[in-house]
Amino acid sequence: MKRKIALLFYESSTRTRTSFELAAKALGADTTLVSSLSSSIEKGESLKDTGLTLRALGAEAIILRHNSSGAPWLLEAETRLPVVNAGDGMHEHPTQALLDLRTILTHLRPDVVTVDAQTLAGVTITIVGDIMHSRVARSNMMLLPRLGAHVILCGSKELLPEVAGLAGPGISIERDFDAALHQSDVVMMLRIQAERLAGLQLDLEEYKANYQLTGPRLANHAPKAVVMHPGPIIRGMEVTSGVADGVQSVILEQVKNGVAIRMAVVERALTAGGAA
Amino acid sequence: MKRKIALLFYESSTRTRTSFELAAKALGADTTLVSSLSSSIEKGESLKDTGLTLRALGAEAIILRHNSSGAPWLLEAETRLPVVNAGDGMHEHPTQALLDLRTILTHLRPDVVTVDAQTLAGVTITIVGDIMHSRVARSNMMLLPRLGAHVILCGSKELLPEVAGLAGPGISIERDFDAALHQSDVVMMLRIQAERLAGLQLDLEEYKANYQLTGPRLANHAPKAVVMHPGPIIRGMEVTSGVADGVQSVILEQVKNGVAIRMAVVERALTAGGAA
Amino acid sequence: MKRKIALLFYESSTRTRTSFELAAKALGADTTLVSSLSSSIEKGESLKDTGLTLRALGAEAIILRHNSSGAPWLLEAETRLPVVNAGDGMHEHPTQALLDLRTILTHLRPDVVTVDAQTLAGVTITIVGDIMHSRVARSNMMLLPRLGAHVILCGSKELLPEVAGLAGPGISIERDFDAALHQSDVVMMLRIQAERLAGLQLDLEEYKANYQLTGPRLANHAPKAVVMHPGPIIRGMEVTSGVADGVQSVILEQVKNGVAIRMAVVERALTAGGAA
Repeated sequence: MKRKIALLFYESSTRTRTSFELAAKALGADTTLVSSLSSSIEKGESLKDTGLTLRALGAEAIILRHNSSGAPWLLEAETRLPVVNAGDGMHEHPTQALLDLRTILTHLRPDVVTVDAQTLAGVTITIVGDIMHSRVARSNMMLLPRLGAHVILCGSKELLPEVAGLAGPGISIERDFDAALHQSDVVMMLRIQAERLAGLQLDLEEYKANYQLTGPRLANHAPKAVVMHPGPIIRGMEVTSGVADGVQSVILEQVKNGVAIRMAVVERALTAGGAA
Repeated sequence: MKRKIALLFYESSTRTRTSFELAAKALGADTTLVSSLSSSIEKGESLKDTGLTLRALGAEAIILRHNSSGAPWLLEAETRLPVVNAGDGMHEHPTQALLDLRTILTHLRPDVVTVDAQTLAGVTITIVGDIMHSRVARSNMMLLPRLGAHVILCGSKELLPEVAGLAGPGISIERDFDAALHQSDVVMMLRIQAERLAGLQLDLEEYKANYQLTGPRLANHAPKAVVMHPGPIIRGMEVTSGVADGVQSVILEQVKNGVAIRMAVVERALTAGGAA
Repeated sequence: MKRKIALLFYESSTRTRTSFELAAKALGADTTLVSSLSSSIEKGESLKDTGLTLRALGAEAIILRHNSSGAPWLLEAETRLPVVNAGDGMHEHPTQALLDLRTILTHLRPDVVTVDAQTLAGVTITIVGDIMHSRVARSNMMLLPRLGAHVILCGSKELLPEVAGLAGPGISIERDFDAALHQSDVVMMLRIQAERLAGLQLDLEEYKANYQLTGPRLANHAPKAVVMHPGPIIRGMEVTSGVADGVQSVILEQVKNGVAIRMAVVERALTAGGAA
């Protein structure tokens, strides 16, 4: 019997959903997609009941994207199935951080096989942009310092509150993008999430002047840094087209590594029965 | 060559669609989903033409959910393919009744192998709630009395017209929920279908006072009854959370039995070429 | 490893999407569907970046339906993957023309194995209706004259500008439907695309009087012609129900031939790495 994996997506997604689907299929599993657009979710069914139904239908693991922070923990507690977090609200996106780490290791620590608290010692990674709304930022801020990296957060006060610098050891704030770039081995650009900015008075032209990663800025301040982005990118907004396609960009490597990382995570979920 | 089965869904569905998909795959068939959200249906194509197109594309059977009563018969007449009714308007949902029967037999007649007109003799099943709009109720009202069961319909006059008691032999109406519970071996709760209640002046608080299945009500009036629900359940509406998760509830067994029942129905459709 | 094919659909579709999916599966490939309803497309990602992401995820070919003319060429240039055009804006729909050709050959040139510039010499094909907005018309106008066919375009001035008659050799305009039918071996009816007619003052009753294909019109003017339609058909609009289901109609043969044609096109895309 093929293993059965349910993908339960309450938010739209191309790369994450497809990446998990391909990972599951590569492991020989069957996948079933339930998305909020065409499901009982519309009829008011709770997350718990959708999860219990999927288990009763035969699902052995659930990959969940949900707009509420913490939803994967609730679902796992209720269903006692392994639940993989594919993004929960503004909270976490752990497989993204793992694929980011895989990509960083390939470029900065190519010989490393197993990681420890010193693996990224001496490596500075700057995360730039809408930190406040970014679950990608949050997951990387939890993962990278544990391996010894220094994480610089960079952005305006509206999108990066001062308190974020206190999130943990190894994390600091630098509001001047050029100064941050000067210290960076890796620069991780975030998407401006227009759908999450309702109510903020953000001047996009001013934002771009201060925080867009352009060719000249990169050449002047970080000509050897690795440029990353979790996607989808909006060309001309957080990065210029030239930077997105430039030799320093590893954006498509990140996508490619995502399939392998998710194969590992799903394999672990199916065999150990534990959460990821 | 794998057998090809088309799922044609004009209404949203999680459990029924997924259940049929898993059933078809378990039989080794390929499935193709056509839903009204992303198809030519939007362009005004008729059900007949969508069906003929699916046949020309190679479909050997069609599983149809449609918002019009009788649509499966039309589709079968036009395509001359076996058509499985996965719910048609406010009319029928036959595979739900079959899986409900399977679940009832497991709990009340565990030794039965083949059913006859006396199999459920002496068994009383109360169906509670929005009978008028429920195709699940209608299919069970047709199936269960043929096996000797007594079916009690229970609900307010808005949702359960007096005439329903005349639907056939073995069917009666009892508007007092507690009195109905007293006689019941099985109590089948229906979802309050908010999307079908437009225009009705239903006082939900009064409805719940009279017809919500609560822990105390169950303990007082039917402490041994089997509690069923076709899902999706709305906790705190037709049932309390405690009842949904309680020891008398077999709601998730129903979901699980659904896959097996639909494997049998699809197998029959593919081999005999007959409708179900 | 199974070959991986991405279906990238920016417009809704039943028959084309399903036809390509079945074709790819019949070749033993895995397909992944990305549609604009549930993807990063909503977040403003460019076609280029969606394509590059699909390539990074492992796609070896992309089947694209897009609302902008020329999109497949852009996508192929950017991704350097084989891209199959499944309809681009009001421009082309080449696999539809190929399956139309396959259907015409079956009926008028059953012995032909390979085609040349004389294969359809002496054959007159009339395309009727909303030529201006039809990518099906445009692809057939490019393909059929190259095989020696005479193509007559027929419709009102709003939907068929005079300049269309200059599209190439072998193409002419005849505004009188009956006169066109008299000369026709094949009559290809087009759907009235209500979604593309915004702003046009089209009198549907007058349109039907002039250009609907009815039983009497067909019997009087083209009793032996082959009747085609790319679907979805709107019965009672461009064709009557009797004609759609009549003995001269090969509409469902077209659908069936579509799977074979798309198998050939996808096979060629995967093996030669070239575009189609």
